[in-house]
Amino acid sequence: MATYLRRVDDTIVALATPQGVGAIAVIRLSGKEAIELANRVFFGKNLERQASHTIHFGTIRDGDRIIDEVLVSLFVAPHSFTKENVVEISTHGSSYIVNQVLRLLVRQGARPAEPGEFTQRAFLNGQFDLAQAEAVADLIHSDSEAAHQAAMHQMRGGFSGEIAELRAQLIHFASMIELELDFTEEDVEFASREDLRLLVEKLLRVVERLISSFDLGNVIKNGVPTVIAGKPNAGKSTLLNALLNEEKAIVSDIAGTTRDSIEDEITLGGVVFRFIDTAGLRETSDTIEAMGVSRTREKMKSASLILYLFDLGDTDLVAINQDLHQLENIGVPFIKVANKLDKGNPQFINQLKEAHPDTLFISAGKKENLEELKEKILEQVNLDKFRTGNTVVTNIRHVDSLTRTRDSLLDVLGGLDQEVSNDFLAMDIRRSLHFLGEITGEITTDDLLDNIFSKFCIGK
Amino acid sequence: MATYLRRVDDTIVALATPQGVGAIAVIRLSGKEAIELANRVFFGKNLERQASHTIHFGTIRDGDRIIDEVLVSLFVAPHSFTKENVVEISTHGSSYIVNQVLRLLVRQGARPAEPGEFTQRAFLNGQFDLAQAEAVADLIHSDSEAAHQAAMHQMRGGFSGEIAELRAQLIHFASMIELELDFTEEDVEFASREDLRLLVEKLLRVVERLISSFDLGNVIKNGVPTVIAGKPNAGKSTLLNALLNEEKAIVSDIAGTTRDSIEDEITLGGVVFRFIDTAGLRETSDTIEAMGVSRTREKMKSASLILYLFDLGDTDLVAINQDLHQLENIGVPFIKVANKLDKGNPQFINQLKEAHPDTLFISAGKKENLEELKEKILEQVNLDKFRTGNTVVTNIRHVDSLTRTRDSLLDVLGGLDQEVSNDFLAMDIRRSLHFLGEITGEITTDDLLDNIFSKFCIGK
Repeated sequence: MATYLRRVDDTIVALATPQGVGAIAVIRLSGKEAIELANRVFFGKNLERQASHTIHFGTIRDGDRIIDEVLVSLFVAPHSFTKENVVEISTHGSSYIVNQVLRLLVRQGARPAEPGEFTQRAFLNGQFDLAQAEAVADLIHSDSEAAHQAAMHQMRGGFSGEIAELRAQLIHFASMIELELDFTEEDVEFASREDLRLLVEKLLRVVERLISSFDLGNVIKNGVPTVIAGKPNAGKSTLLNALLNEEKAIVSDIAGTTRDSIEDEITLGGVVFRFIDTAGLRETSDTIEAMGVSRTREKMKSASLILYLFDLGDTDLVAINQDLHQLENIGVPFIKVANKLDKGNPQFINQLKEAHPDTLFISAGKKENLEELKEKILEQVNLDKFRTGNTVVTNIRHVDSLTRTRDSLLDVLGGLDQEVSNDFLAMDIRRSLHFLGEITGEITTDDLLDNIFSKFCIGK
Repeated sequence: MATYLRRVDDTIVALATPQGVGAIAVIRLSGKEAIELANRVFFGKNLERQASHTIHFGTIRDGDRIIDEVLVSLFVAPHSFTKENVVEISTHGSSYIVNQVLRLLVRQGARPAEPGEFTQRAFLNGQFDLAQAEAVADLIHSDSEAAHQAAMHQMRGGFSGEIAELRAQLIHFASMIELELDFTEEDVEFASREDLRLLVEKLLRVVERLISSFDLGNVIKNGVPTVIAGKPNAGKSTLLNALLNEEKAIVSDIAGTTRDSIEDEITLGGVVFRFIDTAGLRETSDTIEAMGVSRTREKMKSASLILYLFDLGDTDLVAINQDLHQLENIGVPFIKVANKLDKGNPQFINQLKEAHPDTLFISAGKKENLEELKEKILEQVNLDKFRTGNTVVTNIRHVDSLTRTRDSLLDVLGGLDQEVSNDFLAMDIRRSLHFLGEITGEITTDDLLDNIFSKFCIGK
């Protein structure tokens, strides 16, 4: 497996819980000597004689000085996250204490862990494949139901199994063809070219499906890009704030837990909608009028959904139809939202209902009909596709490797068509295998691993 | 014991680790049904059949939906922090996951814990006394060696034992005297008045010692109030920043752990020095000259240490002697610091060394002789008193109760002198016992407990 050569026989240590004041903090050690090392500063039972998955109360001491009363959890190799000996020390949640304990353990020979190094060791020791390791980071950063489910699905196997199976079949063909190379003079055919074509075509279908799932995967991970378009006085900010505030009220109803709320992101039905700041959303210029400006137009084109908002008291059918014509040219699904319900005169409202029966009437300021708007928004994104247990690729690195795999597989198919020599065919298959192997980590380089794990937080 | 009546048979839940992104988060449950309740959402082994102090891997599920792969630690009553059944669920450190798990547990019947409620239950269930419970919060917020040691000493018993013993003796006398009240007509004396006087005097000595230790305790908890005094161009800010920066470099040498550094606080030899912003320290006006202003004078008087800083290139002996005369009137220990070593002419430096041999010569800008200055600062605060294992009172509530105890004990002594009737004597003794009992929590009220524990963080 991995060509990765980092020395992994030392013992690493890091704070595993977030910085800051809390009731407890957890310091994690992993490595051959983790238990021995913890035992040297722990006063209580002899940790080296205790069973795996047990917890022990005692004190951490630096010589005579008691640093803290702690609980120590033991995980004896290979029954741990990293498959190494792991010790978790649960201290009182003081940064002073955490620092003292970390220093003490480093003095005893532990090395401060690099970002993601625990997960990296888990990968190197065969706990899971690379795609699963990457899902651990995605899981930690997931902030909506859809993102969470996609990460969880990937961490628990995801497309790894599917890819591994097809890769195994392709390896079989590659071996057969390479075997034929040894018998070139005898004109044997161990690998049926027709079976190979069928397998490659099957693989291509899987790979294509995974690549095309990234559109959804990206939206799941980063939110549905959404634009509120409308004249400056249409109430765009009011609407956005009304949606944001309501969410804030919902998410903070359990004391002591506040979600990091991101400006301009709302979660509806487990899906994040990310509002893009086109000119006019936060500023006072006019989005619709500004659409002629190509930058604004590009931004609106990159959205997956547009809320077209207008002030019932300050427009007419002609203006609305002009705007709608512009929006249709953009080619992004949009919802027609009539704001300031109280300001519209009944005659105009009836006229509007007739011309555009799918118009939604709201009052952003008075928070009227916002639920209906939310439902309409969710309808547009076709919630079911977020909820299927289907495999969704959310990682751009995976898409990259999948795309290269596809190109190589197409080369294999082309080679079969043109009946190229076995050498070339074998080379193209190997190349497909290489790119496929990059995804799950059968093929890795130090650079690749460093690049992946350096994005993790320390302690993971 | 406690008169506290809050219903404590329900099961409470809270996040025990700090908010924010980390590798893991720990959710803590405590109460009769903690294990049963966790078992309903945990898929893995049957938690109700596992031994205390064991750890179990599995998934937390909401119906079919997997919320996370977790490790569950079990603590079976009474072998836990709260002496109740306790479950700690270690999840991936995502606020989304933490919220989902908390909501799920609340839906199963757990109640979100109030601040300090776990520690409060530990106190109510006799895990430790009130002074020890308060030390848990101090421990979490300790940010220097001295504060940490004082909190640790108190958490592990501190003066609780000493007070409990003397209180028991006093209770004995109170009972004897109250017994005498039943036999008033027979003129018996169960309690020797001379022995009572000796005990009260002994108690008074202990109480006085504890009260007077608060001066040190306050300094330990809040830092040594220090002033840098000198003319605007003397280099006060430069000196403070040089001391602060050097400390920052020291405290951040383990990757991933940064102490919350507080502006204007430095830690030397395990003791925090808190620099008071008198006029002139951060601004450009002149502290020494401004000393006539009573507010500045008061601030300087409240300091425990003054660094008198002057520019060698911009003063003379007459000016220095005038300043020193002013400082002597303040009555706070001070250190004479000559700054801008390179700017002083040799003749003046010699003259100065002769007149004031205890002057320290530094260059704040070039960071010369700062180590000597730090040593001098530490000398002044008499480090030994911070390092003794002696009991130090750091909590203003304790000082308050101790002061009331002292006053009541003095009343007892006065009563003995005046040979007051047994009723009065018994009343004064009871009052002493009451205030003494408030410290360790033998005497409590709901208000007192609420007041103490509401200052804790949630999850502790």
